[in-house]
Amino acid sequence: MFVVDLNSDLGESYGAYTLGNDKEVLKYISSANIACGYHAGDHNVMFETVRLAQKYGVKIGAHPGFPDLAGFGRREMNLSPREIYNLVIYQIGALQAVTKASGTTLSHVKPHGALYNMTAKNREMADAITQAIVDLDSNLVLFGLAGSELVKAGSHKGLLVAEEVFADRTYQTDGTLTSRTEKNAIIHDTGQAIQRAIRMINEGKVEAVNGTNIDIQADTICVHGDETKAVEFVKELRKALEQGNITLRKSWRER
Amino acid sequence: MFVVDLNSDLGESYGAYTLGNDKEVLKYISSANIACGYHAGDHNVMFETVRLAQKYGVKIGAHPGFPDLAGFGRREMNLSPREIYNLVIYQIGALQAVTKASGTTLSHVKPHGALYNMTAKNREMADAITQAIVDLDSNLVLFGLAGSELVKAGSHKGLLVAEEVFADRTYQTDGTLTSRTEKNAIIHDTGQAIQRAIRMINEGKVEAVNGTNIDIQADTICVHGDETKAVEFVKELRKALEQGNITLRKSWRER
Amino acid sequence: MFVVDLNSDLGESYGAYTLGNDKEVLKYISSANIACGYHAGDHNVMFETVRLAQKYGVKIGAHPGFPDLAGFGRREMNLSPREIYNLVIYQIGALQAVTKASGTTLSHVKPHGALYNMTAKNREMADAITQAIVDLDSNLVLFGLAGSELVKAGSHKGLLVAEEVFADRTYQTDGTLTSRTEKNAIIHDTGQAIQRAIRMINEGKVEAVNGTNIDIQADTICVHGDETKAVEFVKELRKALEQGNITLRKSWRER
Amino acid sequence: MFVVDLNSDLGESYGAYTLGNDKEVLKYISSANIACGYHAGDHNVMFETVRLAQKYGVKIGAHPGFPDLAGFGRREMNLSPREIYNLVIYQIGALQAVTKASGTTLSHVKPHGALYNMTAKNREMADAITQAIVDLDSNLVLFGLAGSELVKAGSHKGLLVAEEVFADRTYQTDGTLTSRTEKNAIIHDTGQAIQRAIRMINEGKVEAVNGTNIDIQADTICVHGDETKAVEFVKELRKALEQGNITLRKSWRER
Repeated sequence: MFVVDLNSDLGESYGAYTLGNDKEVLKYISSANIACGYHAGDHNVMFETVRLAQKYGVKIGAHPGFPDLAGFGRREMNLSPREIYNLVIYQIGALQAVTKASGTTLSHVKPHGALYNMTAKNREMADAITQAIVDLDSNLVLFGLAGSELVKAGSHKGLLVAEEVFADRTYQTDGTLTSRTEKNAIIHDTGQAIQRAIRMINEGKVEAVNGTNIDIQADTICVHGDETKAVEFVKELRKALEQGNITLRKSWRER
Repeated sequence: MFVVDLNSDLGESYGAYTLGNDKEVLKYISSANIACGYHAGDHNVMFETVRLAQKYGVKIGAHPGFPDLAGFGRREMNLSPREIYNLVIYQIGALQAVTKASGTTLSHVKPHGALYNMTAKNREMADAITQAIVDLDSNLVLFGLAGSELVKAGSHKGLLVAEEVFADRTYQTDGTLTSRTEKNAIIHDTGQAIQRAIRMINEGKVEAVNGTNIDIQADTICVHGDETKAVEFVKELRKALEQGNITLRKSWRER
Repeated sequence: MFVVDLNSDLGESYGAYTLGNDKEVLKYISSANIACGYHAGDHNVMFETVRLAQKYGVKIGAHPGFPDLAGFGRREMNLSPREIYNLVIYQIGALQAVTKASGTTLSHVKPHGALYNMTAKNREMADAITQAIVDLDSNLVLFGLAGSELVKAGSHKGLLVAEEVFADRTYQTDGTLTSRTEKNAIIHDTGQAIQRAIRMINEGKVEAVNGTNIDIQADTICVHGDETKAVEFVKELRKALEQGNITLRKSWRER
Repeated sequence: MFVVDLNSDLGESYGAYTLGNDKEVLKYISSANIACGYHAGDHNVMFETVRLAQKYGVKIGAHPGFPDLAGFGRREMNLSPREIYNLVIYQIGALQAVTKASGTTLSHVKPHGALYNMTAKNREMADAITQAIVDLDSNLVLFGLAGSELVKAGSHKGLLVAEEVFADRTYQTDGTLTSRTEKNAIIHDTGQAIQRAIRMINEGKVEAVNGTNIDIQADTICVHGDETKAVEFVKELRKALEQGNITLRKSWRER
């Protein structure tokens, strides 16, 4: 029997601003990546999101990003590895305290936005994040793009890593995601996206844009929660997983 | 033999902005209250200040404040007790992680500026901070104005509290500080300020503005570090303590 | 024939965060109060909102607030009159430039949130805003709560003022709004709210909570734009105004 | 008789943070570039700096930067030309209002930090700034690195441009500044720096790092104000200018 994790970026509201439909998405996923107040989220939103994740029995992860609320952490910042280390420590620590005060614990860490993309390619930046996790709590699972420098850096330092795949994105033959600026970057057909997800889980394969099959490890699938359509997709995906006898991962340590 | 703690608010620089003479002050004090990025400080400054405190063997404390960099945390914010709880948890957690990654631990918590003043008088807000400490780490020592609602709230919840006194401020007969808007709020004569500090430590007494002697508990004395004159004062105070056979507190648990 | 202005607070989105349904509301109002980047809005949102207001022929006003994005400008800040003057000048100036670059001009100024409420009662703060407008452009119309200190301050300094009323709020006998913490603060019945608006325009009277009729000047009516229901209300109100032969004000100078 | 402008970046304090020695530097320069609240400065600092500039009869310019207080506007941000246009309009507008309320006017615009460096090389970004000035007030003088894309863009659009040189920096043969990461980027000898400045003004020539003489137009010289040594340098430079019969430019229009 196959097991997979479904994760979603949550807790991205800020003050009077509401983003995403956290309450609905939490019903269908197994890991919540919670923003830590740098690119999104604030101390109140973090507590509320942790509370909701607890209510639905969803594993909680830190989702640190660049200090850039105006750009939602999506703009590249050329910070030194040392500063990346520092800001990741700060953000994970803040959420660790929120989980402790809420009677629960952190399970994983997934960098956000431009920090995710930059550390997928840049080993020095990837090492900075990895070292931060090692220094804070080496039991935390590191989420990174499947096959990326980040997951390599994590494995190298002895962290448990979860390779992340995207059901609705296309892949190049080298395993990287097709850039969103390309026409064929997104798979709009729900059925097709779900079939690709199932195959990545069951066979560890995905068809790249040029038609060849490439190897890919699908430990966790990223699903979105910010649109009505997105929630519909998660529901469909869950149904397909059930029919395919694939269960959601309860814990990263009990395999 | 008497023992006393000397504390100072440090790590208040931010980005390109430098505030205070942390390196110099750290040579003379026993407790550093480090800003946590809300009213001052940032992830880089926090790491650097923790490193310096370690170098000089100074106990490290969190100095959480209101989320108000523009106002340096000195402006009153009428936040709910729940939000105060949340923002204190966030800030302590961030600094806890910085100390852990630096190979050390937090020793105490002292609220900053308007948060310090409001929780000195408002029991509900004081309870919020106290509960945050209890929920995160009940071994943390709570610093508060001597005789304030904050130290009462801390004692009530079983926390070890350190009552804080000011050598260069005058007191009312009820033990509160004379408002800075009053003419006689500040003691400008260094010798007089030092004699008052020594007496507070040795006798637990201070002369209030109307000439009567009041009881005061001087567990820790606040010294400033943002002016040349301030550093001179600390040096003089240290000399007087030595001459008075008063030593600096190494630890809060070994009395 | 009666003439009235309908205004709405717009341009409150920020970066990745969308707030309100500006495009829809702009079809039905005559004055847009645009956030200026302190409590909401940013330089991109300001340009886009000005563009939309131009498209629908809606008069443009500055909507300055406290520098408090996290609190959306709804939290009281005890700033000096001088600082209020300074921050109002800054924000109006920023929007003036945006309108100039967009080929249009500012028509009015309405303070936001806590700044609106505090200047309604505090004459010194009201004078600060008023002086800022006088010093920048005395042709700008000042929007303030009907009967408030702000409109008195504006009239006293020779500004054209627009007294603002709320169709869905109840009034005390002294003309102040019933606090939102009171049960009877809000009028939930759409028909009743519209009838009250019409009466305020036609007769200059509104029934206070104790049943007595009080005088009120209704130069401009505030309508909300952040909920589906709110847009429905504006549509209904517009229909009622048309049936009552009340037209929307095109300009403040041509009466 | 030769005429030159001396400019300095001022008004970079923020809230409780003081940066630079504005009061002292203003005695020796002819143009003040005032930060506009994005990378440094705030509404209070802007008013105070304008007041000081007026007191010393110094021309006032806007010094817009990237929205990045934590990085002091020194970090590159890959924003679209449209967003650069928007943020420059916003910042100039805010300072225009401050000058208007202070009874004076803006004279020039000089981009700050990374915005200065990026627009020196990137024509599209340079065009965005230039267009912003044209749309707001085409009488504003554009300050840019001598020979840069920014001054070319300004000239192309019909703006009066002031080419800026640095007395204490070395130049490559193509007229660009030697990168600060290079050993020979800075000229530490005050006498040598002053001689180079005088020659740039009188002859329009400077010796590049490889020993060849290159053409350079020195309309305005940048001097720093953030260190004691910096103020000493300005004094020395002023003395040398006087001895060389070079006067400070009072106005850009009366040549």
